[in-house]
Amino acid sequence: MRLGALEAGGTKMVCAVGDEKGRIRERRVIPTRTPEETLPEMIGFYREQGVESLGIGCFGPINPVKGMKGYGFITSTPKLAWQNCDIAGAFERALGCPVGFDTDVNASLLGEITFGAARGLSDCIYVTVGTGIGVGVCAGGKLLHGVMHPEAGHILMRRRPGDSYPGKCPFHASCLEGLAAGPAIEERWGAKGAELKDRREVWDLEAYYLAQACVDFTYVYSPGRIILGGGVMHQEQLFPMIRRQYRELEAGYVKNSQTADLESYIVPASLGDDQGILGCLRLAWEAKEG
Amino acid sequence: MRLGALEAGGTKMVCAVGDEKGRIRERRVIPTRTPEETLPEMIGFYREQGVESLGIGCFGPINPVKGMKGYGFITSTPKLAWQNCDIAGAFERALGCPVGFDTDVNASLLGEITFGAARGLSDCIYVTVGTGIGVGVCAGGKLLHGVMHPEAGHILMRRRPGDSYPGKCPFHASCLEGLAAGPAIEERWGAKGAELKDRREVWDLEAYYLAQACVDFTYVYSPGRIILGGGVMHQEQLFPMIRRQYRELEAGYVKNSQTADLESYIVPASLGDDQGILGCLRLAWEAKEG
Repeated sequence: MRLGALEAGGTKMVCAVGDEKGRIRERRVIPTRTPEETLPEMIGFYREQGVESLGIGCFGPINPVKGMKGYGFITSTPKLAWQNCDIAGAFERALGCPVGFDTDVNASLLGEITFGAARGLSDCIYVTVGTGIGVGVCAGGKLLHGVMHPEAGHILMRRRPGDSYPGKCPFHASCLEGLAAGPAIEERWGAKGAELKDRREVWDLEAYYLAQACVDFTYVYSPGRIILGGGVMHQEQLFPMIRRQYRELEAGYVKNSQTADLESYIVPASLGDDQGILGCLRLAWEAKEG
Repeated sequence: MRLGALEAGGTKMVCAVGDEKGRIRERRVIPTRTPEETLPEMIGFYREQGVESLGIGCFGPINPVKGMKGYGFITSTPKLAWQNCDIAGAFERALGCPVGFDTDVNASLLGEITFGAARGLSDCIYVTVGTGIGVGVCAGGKLLHGVMHPEAGHILMRRRPGDSYPGKCPFHASCLEGLAAGPAIEERWGAKGAELKDRREVWDLEAYYLAQACVDFTYVYSPGRIILGGGVMHQEQLFPMIRRQYRELEAGYVKNSQTADLESYIVPASLGDDQGILGCLRLAWEAKEG
C-alpha cells in the first residue's frame, strides 16, 4: 500500500508516504504559509508520489465529526489565513482518493495505539505539552470527538501556593496551557525550557501542574494509560516528579490495576516524535478501508 | 414488554416494572440493608411481577465494562457489606433473564437521552449534584466507561478567592464534590440547602463551583448539552447564576452553536427525578435486544 500522511501544523506541514506497517518511504517538510501557497505544494508531493488514500492530523480548532456540516474544515483558528479552510475537501478533490481527517493530538494517540506505547489499548489518552497543550482521547476503542473535539489543555487549574505567575493563556490566563505550556515556562523563568534543564524548581512546579492535570484526566476519562508527549516532555526528569505528585494529589481515591502501577500508567511518548505522522498513516488506512 | 428496572442506591433500592415506552407499571422502594437481606426481597418483587429482562443503574464504584473480569460487581464502595458483590450476576442467576448494568449516573443520562432533555443527542453529559457529585457521559452515541467509569465529581478545583471552607471530601478535601455537594453546603453554612433558599451568597458560591466544573466538562468532553440534576439542583435559582459565571470563566474560548446558547446548553433534568429509573428501563430493553 502507498498511504499518504499529513501532519498539518501551524508552522510546518510534514508530508509523508508510507504503508500500513508504519514504514515511512518518503517525507517532505513544507513551511506553513497561506492555503493558496501551501496546498498546491503539498498536493504536488502526493501526486508525484502516488497515494491510494490520505490521512490528515490537523492543528485546530477543526471539525472532525463525519457527517456533520462543516466536516473537514479548519474553523476558528488564530491563523487567520486558514480560518474556514476546507482542508480535507481540498485534498479529496485534488487527489480523488479517500481522506481521513482528525485532530493532531488524536493522530498522535492513534500512532501510539497502532505502533507504540498504547498498542492494543481501547482506553487511553495522549497529552502533548509544547507551544500549547492538547489532549487526544480514545474511549472504548473509538476516538472521542463530542460535538467538536476536546480542548482539554484549557481546563482551569488550582494554583500551587506561592506561585504568583499570572499565566499566559489569552482567554483564561491560568488554565493548564496558560500555566504549563512551553511559552509559560519561558515567560515565567526568563529562558526556554531546554536551557533550564538543571533548575530543579522549574520542573518541580511544572510537574505539579501536569500531575494535577493527570489526576483530573483520570477522573474524567478513566483511561488505561496516559501518554505525555511534545517538546516539554523531552525533559525526562519530569516523569518521576509527575508520578510522585500525582500520587499525592490523587490520594488513592481510584483503585484499579492501571493506576496502581504509575510507571506504566503515566508514560512518555514512544515513537521519537513520529507518533503524529504514523497516526496519519493509520487514518489513511482507515479511510481506504472505509 | 415487561421490563424490570432497578435504581440501586446506598440508602434505598427503587424497583420498578415498565415498558420500552417509558411507562412505569409498578414501583417498590426497599431500604438498602445488606445484600443477604435486600437481594432476596428485590428478586421476589421481580419474580412476582414477571420480567423479560432487567436494567440496573447502580451506586459505585462498580465494574460496568462488559467482557472484563469482574463485570457486574460493585467494587470498592465504602458501604462495606456491598463490596465485591456480584449484583448483576445475582439477578441474572435468580431471574434467568438478560441483565443490563451501568452506573447510576449513566442510567440517569440514558433516561434523559431516551425520554427527556437530551432526546436524540449523541454527545451529552448528566451531572448529579446531591449527597455526592457524579457524571454520566455519552460520546458518539455510546456511554463512556474507560477502564472503570468516570469519577468526574472529584476533579480538583480552583478555589474562589475569599472562600476558606476546607472542603468535605475525605480524599481530596476541596475537589468538586468536597466543595459543592449537599454535605459541603450544609457544613459550610450550618443548614441544609433547602433551608437556605433565600441566602443569595450561598447559591452564588455554589454556582461558581458548578460553573467552573461545566467549563472543564466542556473542554474535556465537548458535549452538546450539560444536564444538571440531583437534590441540590432543585434550587432552580442556580441555573441563571451558573450560566452567567460559566460565560465569565469560559471567556469565549470555545465557539460552537451549542455553547452559543447557554439556555439550551446548561439545563435542568427534565423527568422529575425519574430519569434514573427510566434509564434502567432502557438498559433492560438493550439487554433484551442483545
